[in-house]
Amino acid sequence: MADKVVCFGEIMLRLSTPGYSRFIQAGSFDATYGGGEANVAVSLANYGLDSFYVTKLPDNPIGHAALNHLRRFGVRTEHIIRGGERLGIYFLETGASQRPSKVVYDRSHSSISAIQPGEIDWKRVFEGAKWFHFTGITPALSDNAAHATLEAAKTAREMGLTVSCDLNYRKKLWSTEKARSVMGQLIKYVDISIGNEEDAGKVFGIKAQSTDITSGKLNREGYREVAKRLVEEYGLKMAAITLRESYSASDNGWSVMLYDGSGFFISRKYKVHIVDRVGGGDSFAGGLIYSLINGYDGQKAVEFAAAASCLKHTIPGDFNHVTAAEVTGLMEGDGSGRVQR
Amino acid sequence: MADKVVCFGEIMLRLSTPGYSRFIQAGSFDATYGGGEANVAVSLANYGLDSFYVTKLPDNPIGHAALNHLRRFGVRTEHIIRGGERLGIYFLETGASQRPSKVVYDRSHSSISAIQPGEIDWKRVFEGAKWFHFTGITPALSDNAAHATLEAAKTAREMGLTVSCDLNYRKKLWSTEKARSVMGQLIKYVDISIGNEEDAGKVFGIKAQSTDITSGKLNREGYREVAKRLVEEYGLKMAAITLRESYSASDNGWSVMLYDGSGFFISRKYKVHIVDRVGGGDSFAGGLIYSLINGYDGQKAVEFAAAASCLKHTIPGDFNHVTAAEVTGLMEGDGSGRVQR
Amino acid sequence: MADKVVCFGEIMLRLSTPGYSRFIQAGSFDATYGGGEANVAVSLANYGLDSFYVTKLPDNPIGHAALNHLRRFGVRTEHIIRGGERLGIYFLETGASQRPSKVVYDRSHSSISAIQPGEIDWKRVFEGAKWFHFTGITPALSDNAAHATLEAAKTAREMGLTVSCDLNYRKKLWSTEKARSVMGQLIKYVDISIGNEEDAGKVFGIKAQSTDITSGKLNREGYREVAKRLVEEYGLKMAAITLRESYSASDNGWSVMLYDGSGFFISRKYKVHIVDRVGGGDSFAGGLIYSLINGYDGQKAVEFAAAASCLKHTIPGDFNHVTAAEVTGLMEGDGSGRVQR
Amino acid sequence: MADKVVCFGEIMLRLSTPGYSRFIQAGSFDATYGGGEANVAVSLANYGLDSFYVTKLPDNPIGHAALNHLRRFGVRTEHIIRGGERLGIYFLETGASQRPSKVVYDRSHSSISAIQPGEIDWKRVFEGAKWFHFTGITPALSDNAAHATLEAAKTAREMGLTVSCDLNYRKKLWSTEKARSVMGQLIKYVDISIGNEEDAGKVFGIKAQSTDITSGKLNREGYREVAKRLVEEYGLKMAAITLRESYSASDNGWSVMLYDGSGFFISRKYKVHIVDRVGGGDSFAGGLIYSLINGYDGQKAVEFAAAASCLKHTIPGDFNHVTAAEVTGLMEGDGSGRVQR
Amino acid sequence: MADKVVCFGEIMLRLSTPGYSRFIQAGSFDATYGGGEANVAVSLANYGLDSFYVTKLPDNPIGHAALNHLRRFGVRTEHIIRGGERLGIYFLETGASQRPSKVVYDRSHSSISAIQPGEIDWKRVFEGAKWFHFTGITPALSDNAAHATLEAAKTAREMGLTVSCDLNYRKKLWSTEKARSVMGQLIKYVDISIGNEEDAGKVFGIKAQSTDITSGKLNREGYREVAKRLVEEYGLKMAAITLRESYSASDNGWSVMLYDGSGFFISRKYKVHIVDRVGGGDSFAGGLIYSLINGYDGQKAVEFAAAASCLKHTIPGDFNHVTAAEVTGLMEGDGSGRVQR
Amino acid sequence: MADKVVCFGEIMLRLSTPGYSRFIQAGSFDATYGGGEANVAVSLANYGLDSFYVTKLPDNPIGHAALNHLRRFGVRTEHIIRGGERLGIYFLETGASQRPSKVVYDRSHSSISAIQPGEIDWKRVFEGAKWFHFTGITPALSDNAAHATLEAAKTAREMGLTVSCDLNYRKKLWSTEKARSVMGQLIKYVDISIGNEEDAGKVFGIKAQSTDITSGKLNREGYREVAKRLVEEYGLKMAAITLRESYSASDNGWSVMLYDGSGFFISRKYKVHIVDRVGGGDSFAGGLIYSLINGYDGQKAVEFAAAASCLKHTIPGDFNHVTAAEVTGLMEGDGSGRVQR
Repeated sequence: MADKVVCFGEIMLRLSTPGYSRFIQAGSFDATYGGGEANVAVSLANYGLDSFYVTKLPDNPIGHAALNHLRRFGVRTEHIIRGGERLGIYFLETGASQRPSKVVYDRSHSSISAIQPGEIDWKRVFEGAKWFHFTGITPALSDNAAHATLEAAKTAREMGLTVSCDLNYRKKLWSTEKARSVMGQLIKYVDISIGNEEDAGKVFGIKAQSTDITSGKLNREGYREVAKRLVEEYGLKMAAITLRESYSASDNGWSVMLYDGSGFFISRKYKVHIVDRVGGGDSFAGGLIYSLINGYDGQKAVEFAAAASCLKHTIPGDFNHVTAAEVTGLMEGDGSGRVQR
Repeated sequence: MADKVVCFGEIMLRLSTPGYSRFIQAGSFDATYGGGEANVAVSLANYGLDSFYVTKLPDNPIGHAALNHLRRFGVRTEHIIRGGERLGIYFLETGASQRPSKVVYDRSHSSISAIQPGEIDWKRVFEGAKWFHFTGITPALSDNAAHATLEAAKTAREMGLTVSCDLNYRKKLWSTEKARSVMGQLIKYVDISIGNEEDAGKVFGIKAQSTDITSGKLNREGYREVAKRLVEEYGLKMAAITLRESYSASDNGWSVMLYDGSGFFISRKYKVHIVDRVGGGDSFAGGLIYSLINGYDGQKAVEFAAAASCLKHTIPGDFNHVTAAEVTGLMEGDGSGRVQR
Repeated sequence: MADKVVCFGEIMLRLSTPGYSRFIQAGSFDATYGGGEANVAVSLANYGLDSFYVTKLPDNPIGHAALNHLRRFGVRTEHIIRGGERLGIYFLETGASQRPSKVVYDRSHSSISAIQPGEIDWKRVFEGAKWFHFTGITPALSDNAAHATLEAAKTAREMGLTVSCDLNYRKKLWSTEKARSVMGQLIKYVDISIGNEEDAGKVFGIKAQSTDITSGKLNREGYREVAKRLVEEYGLKMAAITLRESYSASDNGWSVMLYDGSGFFISRKYKVHIVDRVGGGDSFAGGLIYSLINGYDGQKAVEFAAAASCLKHTIPGDFNHVTAAEVTGLMEGDGSGRVQR
Repeated sequence: MADKVVCFGEIMLRLSTPGYSRFIQAGSFDATYGGGEANVAVSLANYGLDSFYVTKLPDNPIGHAALNHLRRFGVRTEHIIRGGERLGIYFLETGASQRPSKVVYDRSHSSISAIQPGEIDWKRVFEGAKWFHFTGITPALSDNAAHATLEAAKTAREMGLTVSCDLNYRKKLWSTEKARSVMGQLIKYVDISIGNEEDAGKVFGIKAQSTDITSGKLNREGYREVAKRLVEEYGLKMAAITLRESYSASDNGWSVMLYDGSGFFISRKYKVHIVDRVGGGDSFAGGLIYSLINGYDGQKAVEFAAAASCLKHTIPGDFNHVTAAEVTGLMEGDGSGRVQR
Repeated sequence: MADKVVCFGEIMLRLSTPGYSRFIQAGSFDATYGGGEANVAVSLANYGLDSFYVTKLPDNPIGHAALNHLRRFGVRTEHIIRGGERLGIYFLETGASQRPSKVVYDRSHSSISAIQPGEIDWKRVFEGAKWFHFTGITPALSDNAAHATLEAAKTAREMGLTVSCDLNYRKKLWSTEKARSVMGQLIKYVDISIGNEEDAGKVFGIKAQSTDITSGKLNREGYREVAKRLVEEYGLKMAAITLRESYSASDNGWSVMLYDGSGFFISRKYKVHIVDRVGGGDSFAGGLIYSLINGYDGQKAVEFAAAASCLKHTIPGDFNHVTAAEVTGLMEGDGSGRVQR
Repeated sequence: MADKVVCFGEIMLRLSTPGYSRFIQAGSFDATYGGGEANVAVSLANYGLDSFYVTKLPDNPIGHAALNHLRRFGVRTEHIIRGGERLGIYFLETGASQRPSKVVYDRSHSSISAIQPGEIDWKRVFEGAKWFHFTGITPALSDNAAHATLEAAKTAREMGLTVSCDLNYRKKLWSTEKARSVMGQLIKYVDISIGNEEDAGKVFGIKAQSTDITSGKLNREGYREVAKRLVEEYGLKMAAITLRESYSASDNGWSVMLYDGSGFFISRKYKVHIVDRVGGGDSFAGGLIYSLINGYDGQKAVEFAAAASCLKHTIPGDFNHVTAAEVTGLMEGDGSGRVQR
């Protein structure tokens, strides 16, 4: 029987322009569905866990299509509630070379942002579960959503689940002040924090020394310090950081780091030629959670998670459609890309 | 120099599923832009008038694409203002045979619905213009939008423009009570009302006797009475009614009627095999306005307008991409559909 | 708690040419998945039943995609077993007017056709279930598949489930002699038979008098006799027959008939303008099973089932993507196809 | 060994808008290749004849793609010569209901229109051949092309081939005066003329009494007279006329007539729901030539040719992708459009 | 009030194969519109200038679609005249790695190439304008087009506009001799010349020493000399040169140089991973003209123009769909391609 | 008169997911046709040889489409026989960066695998031919196919043709033991062997020292030894080896080597940015055969063949759609990818 894991957050309709077209050129949009926490849920289902997603979706065909998209890929949708005004949308155009990918959010007034206290029966949701994952996006959506997240995190902690949180700071959703205040409450119930090079700085004011994220160069030493401070200052078990080197919209360097309170583990670095980098961080979270549930040691955990998210960058859409065997294949050395017949 | 005409209202992103796919099957959406008043503006531009559209669009690439869609087809966009939260969206799946087309609206919180008093300088907009057209959809969006519509209609009347209004009752936007109250104010500044078989009943409680709109049969006599009452009770110059006979989602009968205070004019009836019926009524309004500006007599006006909207049903998208010559061609008798080489 | 129903059979990759292209013109195929029994399972899930599908799928990504297609639309896939050589395929080109749709089967050597005795634990599958449905296609695939079907039908009968069978004679899979022999065994465990105008004749030699199925005219009296004989000669509870009048590949008449051992019930006849008629009979079976589980009387049952399958003809793909509310809407009278906003 | 047949004329790049889009909506064009005589050549190859096409194509990749399109469908291309300026193009938008399909020609200055006397070695081309087919389009392209056509027709006659000509009057290419003068020369070498209801009138001034082609009604008696006069006045062996009743761009009636100097043969009439009617007349010519080469009697010949062209109307593109068996299937009675499994 | 700028030249239908397909594989073409001067006009409209395009388009739907394409993107089309035979076409297949992109021109006999003296009222066109831009392509089309260009350039000079010319030598359109003779006349009215590494050599015989353009290496010193000689020998104010290093069809180096009669300015060099390099030079011209109108100094001008054209290489189609803010963003340092949320 | 060459083997339907989609994401498949030997036949037709393909195809429209695909690109199909059960299929998803392309074969029970002794009249097939090419895939399909291959190779040798064989070891089709036994028989009739870095090892146990093919590094010295041993031990005239350096699924190094019994020839190495690498080896075989038939010396032969296969990597589909002139263009130095206008 597979371990039960629960993710909570939003899922949006993703409308992306075909190929490298800009928004103003598009005569159609590719339609998939995704979101920071849903992406993790799909990863965990792909790896064979019993993965549940909790959200609120409008009771119309667009909400239904979002639900179908999750269950198509093996995520359990029994605890999703229906109602509210609309499904959040994000528009995406895929960048190339020096032109960045661009996201236009149209997520206000979504059903999840108007979720009411008590609408979800968290005790029933977490029954028999081992792990709860959320991100810093959901509490940023609205006070209602922040409240629901707090309910969830507290209940999970009380019921003995491991709780992970991807800090995921979104400057369009809230200020750093608001983020610090709300996340400061939530972090108390968190065991493992995940974030990119910027998140800890934006949310908790913990910054690496002298790193210029736009230059494509990263200061690894600095990030060790960030991870260590996160663990120590917030009483975490572990802190993980993704290290993206943005050479261009087409090519990135990608590696990840984990601090478990005693040791630092840094993965191999991948030079990735990018197909779709949205969901890259989420695929790391998925790989890390799977690794830790499986009892992988620190080094194996970062290697698995880094390989998983390396592969995500080659797959269109938010979701990381890979099996654990494929991740292991890459992690154990074959990045040669030879045809598999 | 072409006559200047002004339309005011919303324009939405229209996301339609390819072919006859249902929403839950779609992996992409065809993206165009449309809305009841914008559709009229494009018709008028196609016929050679100097056609202006007034609306409020968000200052993001999606709003910009909507603006581009209008100017691509010759509509003047100088008076469009930018700002606000989002562009309204409607999702469309195209029905066939006994399965109706289905619209899911996601238009709340749009920029136009939050328009502020005085944001548009109506005096400048109407300078030199001959005609102003709006519909019952815009005031239904919000009190703000209703207020702006009232500003516009009053100013237009004061400046001597002819004012037309398509009643266009939308039950998802407001109650009949609210509609009657708001439209009751607006109708005072209207010269010509346009509506389908149901609108006058829903908005003003004026109903034709014993017509069952779902049976595909229409009671023409009853609608004469409706048109007459509209003109008499609301002091209009003219009232026009579209008479759709819905045999199925694939085949409709289509004719139109005009009462000009003295005579009734009924067009020829077209049996239409439908490609896309959204915007059918708007294309009638466009044809009628053009006819009346051109001084066509009542019979010629209904024939032109009916032929115009007959053609619309054969064209994908909200807009009626036909020239006046094409409409005249059909109106003067050639509905044989022979290839034009 | 929804009633549990079980369908057993094949699911194939369906490769259809875009639009009305012929096979030799196609540069791509639309890829969906379907099959006579899977189509019923999806209908039942759409109506809210707890619908399980049982089959055997190859353990490769193509088999996985078929499984995903089922669970996307709410079908429970826990009892699907994996292994064997390949997924069956059928190629489809959609006809129009006088040109018939054409199916090229490439289904030999499929995983399901090589299923072994005992591979499926039918007792566990049927635990708590109310209904079992299969068709005459599965036993025609191979002796192995026939054997598995017999195991299933026997066990279902023993465990008290209602058993329905769509006769579905396929001349490319077996001879009428072989069909009669195998189906003669299976029919003993069947409560309700379903078939089109030809099936009873091909499988059991029971034919309506003087009906020429290619002329588009049907002899309803003759089919009453067929239904009656089926029930009486094979000890069934009910026999249902679909009555398709093929005017052309684009337009059909469609009605259905049920004999319940005492009375005959004939549905309203729909004139359908066809989008995709594959799966039409299966959608009838789905509607009928749902009706009977819900305890509808004979007339209501045929009306619901006929309306359901009428709608199927307007939807691309094998599956009937409609809700019970949509079926009821049509059944209660609104076939006018007016836009639903 | 199959009979050798030769067709001569143009082949153009056909750029058609997707679905029912109008030209000004299109963001892409479907690209196939076709033309009046090439369409006949493909039909004849489909029926198993040894079918050669003769034309001149530019020596660039677009010309090469046209050649490939012919050989893909089994036409022999050994006698095609290369050179000249460009490949002719025609743009097509597909009409529906009351909106006609529209063709925009961009065929001037094509390689074939500049063909030089003697460029084609007609003796070698016709070696061992039984039949030569051309149309009234080619001589209309230019004096050069008319000259080449005359060379071909004369040589064919001298070498004992049967010569057929589809009159195919194109008003955008020449005047009726020019047509009469040039075709008056060519008709001397023709055995069988083919045309629609209008061609004989436009080219030779032979008109049916009181037929209004735009009304969708045809005067069959009048066309008998036309066929008879064609045969008698121009010393033909046979004259064939296609009888299209244009109810709309979506639905046509279609039948054909042949006069063989002694008897009149009129085919069954098909009511066709149209997918693509371009090439309808050409598919009739293909069916007729095949019938006559095969020695079918007059009635069988018109039935085969009518059925062939009925099927063409259901197939996208200029070419009639059907086998002789499929045509015979329809001709012998099964127009029911039932799925062929 | 934005500055008025005028561009004059051709606009063609661009038919490109999807993805990396070769011409002989294509079953459809992506259809956009573009041309050396039209591309500049769109850039200038994007940057907020009041940008007019002058050309002659056929009076058919294809010509109309070209016009719509311009106004969609904000270009003023009031001075476009209609008539003539056809719209020029170019076919494009996009190369990759060692396989170059390939253009097949079908532009002879276009409406613009047959433009008549006096057809355009240049005085009215240039009224209130600040800048006139043309390229060496237009005069190469025909003597008529050369004459019209001369009319335009003279009038612009007389009316005090700044005149820029992109030399743009096209070997398929004329010989170097003809080019030198015609361009020798035109250059007299030019203030600023623009060209790539080869143009000055082909048109005016001014070559850099020892540069092998196929090796991907460029001799910057040599090009300084070229720019200087252009300015001195032809009395220009400035000469700009684009410096493309062609590593492969997928990756290029890109920088630009400007000589203003006193100083040389060389931009930063971008390594571009290419999406679509057609229009790369035109986007540089657009960026440069905008910079100079805005009064940017030499260094800022080359940096803006280089960044603008760097971005163009990442956008499908001829047009450079970027805002001035996006160009400035890249120019001021962020080429990291990080997602913009 | 072009030299006649014959290839024998399978051709499959290739179903590839659009863009970089994974199998489980695909809603459609791009459909082309290909296979190791058919790919060579198309290359040879492209270079102007009289290229025949011999295979067995099912007598259904899918088989017919495969045949059409060959003749579209100029391959002679007269010797293809029809019958048997099905056309083999392979599913392909295109990898990127660290994610390899993946092939799922569904080729069992194909018509060619069940070919019977004597079904093909090899004497007639080889009449007047110069060259026969086959690969190690065909004998691996089945004993029947191995037998037919042996018939062919023997007859070709007897009739004096040069015989080439691409070893092409496929581990999913047979064991190394079976391969060695069967290929051991076939190699007796072979003049020239072709293979990649692994084939000689897998089939004949001849391995290069210390090469790790997954590391992207190749040991050229080792491969010299392999080629030499192949020639000496099996009495060949020549042995050719392709040297792929797999940096990733997006970027490869590519060079080739030929040993002619006296000298070694190694081509220039290309760094290829990959569009589609399936058929890369086959395009090398095609280039080599053409070179040798043309009498190119060893160095020129490897340069032509390497350039040909370099270009293949930039073209979607199995076939190498390039002309000899294009190959020569690259081979003689211009890999700069500059646009060809």
